[in-house]
Amino acid sequence: MGKGRLEAFSDGVIAIIITIMVLELKAPQGIGFDSLLPVIPVLLSYVLSFIYVGIYWNNHHHMLHAVQTVNGSALWANLHLLFWLSLIPFVTAWMDENHFAGAPIALYGGVLLMASVAYYILARVLIRNSGADSPLAAAFGRDWKGLISTLLYALGIAASFWNSKLALAIYVAVAIMWFVPDRRIETSLRD
Amino acid sequence: MGKGRLEAFSDGVIAIIITIMVLELKAPQGIGFDSLLPVIPVLLSYVLSFIYVGIYWNNHHHMLHAVQTVNGSALWANLHLLFWLSLIPFVTAWMDENHFAGAPIALYGGVLLMASVAYYILARVLIRNSGADSPLAAAFGRDWKGLISTLLYALGIAASFWNSKLALAIYVAVAIMWFVPDRRIETSLRD
Amino acid sequence: MGKGRLEAFSDGVIAIIITIMVLELKAPQGIGFDSLLPVIPVLLSYVLSFIYVGIYWNNHHHMLHAVQTVNGSALWANLHLLFWLSLIPFVTAWMDENHFAGAPIALYGGVLLMASVAYYILARVLIRNSGADSPLAAAFGRDWKGLISTLLYALGIAASFWNSKLALAIYVAVAIMWFVPDRRIETSLRD
Amino acid sequence: MGKGRLEAFSDGVIAIIITIMVLELKAPQGIGFDSLLPVIPVLLSYVLSFIYVGIYWNNHHHMLHAVQTVNGSALWANLHLLFWLSLIPFVTAWMDENHFAGAPIALYGGVLLMASVAYYILARVLIRNSGADSPLAAAFGRDWKGLISTLLYALGIAASFWNSKLALAIYVAVAIMWFVPDRRIETSLRD
Repeated sequence: MGKGRLEAFSDGVIAIIITIMVLELKAPQGIGFDSLLPVIPVLLSYVLSFIYVGIYWNNHHHMLHAVQTVNGSALWANLHLLFWLSLIPFVTAWMDENHFAGAPIALYGGVLLMASVAYYILARVLIRNSGADSPLAAAFGRDWKGLISTLLYALGIAASFWNSKLALAIYVAVAIMWFVPDRRIETSLRD
Repeated sequence: MGKGRLEAFSDGVIAIIITIMVLELKAPQGIGFDSLLPVIPVLLSYVLSFIYVGIYWNNHHHMLHAVQTVNGSALWANLHLLFWLSLIPFVTAWMDENHFAGAPIALYGGVLLMASVAYYILARVLIRNSGADSPLAAAFGRDWKGLISTLLYALGIAASFWNSKLALAIYVAVAIMWFVPDRRIETSLRD
Repeated sequence: MGKGRLEAFSDGVIAIIITIMVLELKAPQGIGFDSLLPVIPVLLSYVLSFIYVGIYWNNHHHMLHAVQTVNGSALWANLHLLFWLSLIPFVTAWMDENHFAGAPIALYGGVLLMASVAYYILARVLIRNSGADSPLAAAFGRDWKGLISTLLYALGIAASFWNSKLALAIYVAVAIMWFVPDRRIETSLRD
Repeated sequence: MGKGRLEAFSDGVIAIIITIMVLELKAPQGIGFDSLLPVIPVLLSYVLSFIYVGIYWNNHHHMLHAVQTVNGSALWANLHLLFWLSLIPFVTAWMDENHFAGAPIALYGGVLLMASVAYYILARVLIRNSGADSPLAAAFGRDWKGLISTLLYALGIAASFWNSKLALAIYVAVAIMWFVPDRRIETSLRD
């Protein structure tokens, strides 16, 4: 079964997720620049979540580029990933409306952690379908980068109970780490 | 006439339906984990509806995969299916805001029932267009699974007047039954 | 220049227009079936607008099917059509919230009228680009059906100042007239 | 790496941006035409932003038409452009709710300025990837039109502190200047 519609549907869902977050940016009542001040934390949360969803779109793009066909399991593994990504606008809204309090930041990390697990499952399903000697399997390898991210999200969740700013700093650090698209696959395919 | 735009348009509409339901998940006012408690039934309803829309997308994907061309009737039969699917966010919202009361659960089942009828009509229109000896006709067969689902939705609606939890359990059971994508077509095409 | 992205972008915008109208269907506060009563006019308006947007998508599909390439003017003529279609959710909301009063029904007809004019302009731009002896030009012909629709919308607007129910009946009649997709092009291409 | 999914994802995001702005058009409470009066500035802002987003979609269409492949940097440069475009609904809402006051008009110009810078960066990344002797590089040239636009946005921002109507007039003038799609590339490719 071709991968075209899986890509098209994922593009649609991710495009909506990345864009509906902007609805949380409510136009301030005031007329002056100072009335923008309460919008700034909302905007910063939006930037962080925009980058995270952008990272997932980029990596999803790279991963499916290395795949020829998808089966029924891959459709569901992909929907599972989209489910966790679809919760990002919700946890972003809870986080920014509560000025980065501990519990919302822990939940934000929880959704990121589950999305990273869902991405790992999708990769495994695609690799099983493509074969252990496929370009995707070689490129994905042992996925140290993904494993480290998952551990850092867990660390961020733990930190959020103690110092929510530290937890947020960890999430920002992971985002920076992934900002560069998944060159493993790009490099591997070129060889 | 090619099926490309029918698929693309359906992907767009289904992607929006599956994603706007998350707008119903409103960020709680409170700052602690306990303020998430009232969100839990909303989240569970979202999961159920997400899976139902995902099932329809998967089956739609499989069915159109087995089709080469579409005619004007298929365009309308497809829009008819999308219409009933587009009501899922509305009935989900009514259901979760009223703590799974009887009438909302009956209406939820009613929309699922109509969507299953619309799916059946679309299948018939596509089969008539493809011919009785087409792979799609062979794969679709007598559609016992679809017929049983429609009967179970009707049973769930009846049950909702007596015990709304039982009705909900029936809908969950049907979702589990369909969770596996429509292997009839996948298997038939492979032979 | 290929028509692929014009179709994809139009599919995206039309999919969003047809789906965001469902956000107007607000879950009722009550728990019983009687609390659905005030939703019924909103639902009926949604059905009418859904069918209208569906008609435009079907006809757009047929028209672009008969075209090979698009130029810069066609991109803007297409955006012009999408602009008027994008106002349909707004006029639908005004109409259903005011129980089909005269002014909202007149405005609803005004947007339909402008959309029909925009569709005509798009057809002319595409025909000029394809040539007067193209299949599209032959299929489109003198476009009596489009001209009659535009006149009926104008009649509906005039009627809305006198009897809003009559105006609404005219819009419903035009929708029924177009319900069958544009067979002119389908037939012409088959010959 | 192919450009297909980059185009599809951009189409999705731009389609959503251009359409969710219409949600700002709230149906008036009143029943008569006079209750539409407060909607008019909102509608005019919508028209301006619709045209701006349409201009970006058209130019994006033309630019990517001249490109064969994209790399990881182009994916991020493209997301950067989409980020600034996604803020247009927010700044449009602030502008129209405050009757075109100075600060909202300055911010509107600021987002347009940043989008024009992001478009320039995307063009540079694509040209570096395609080579200095590529059709895109020849067509894009020194980009006087883009440079003048960026300067005019800056002028508009400065003017907004003195006379907000003048600033708005400058933005309208730039929109008119770009209304014609980027013929440089279209012409260059034809030769």
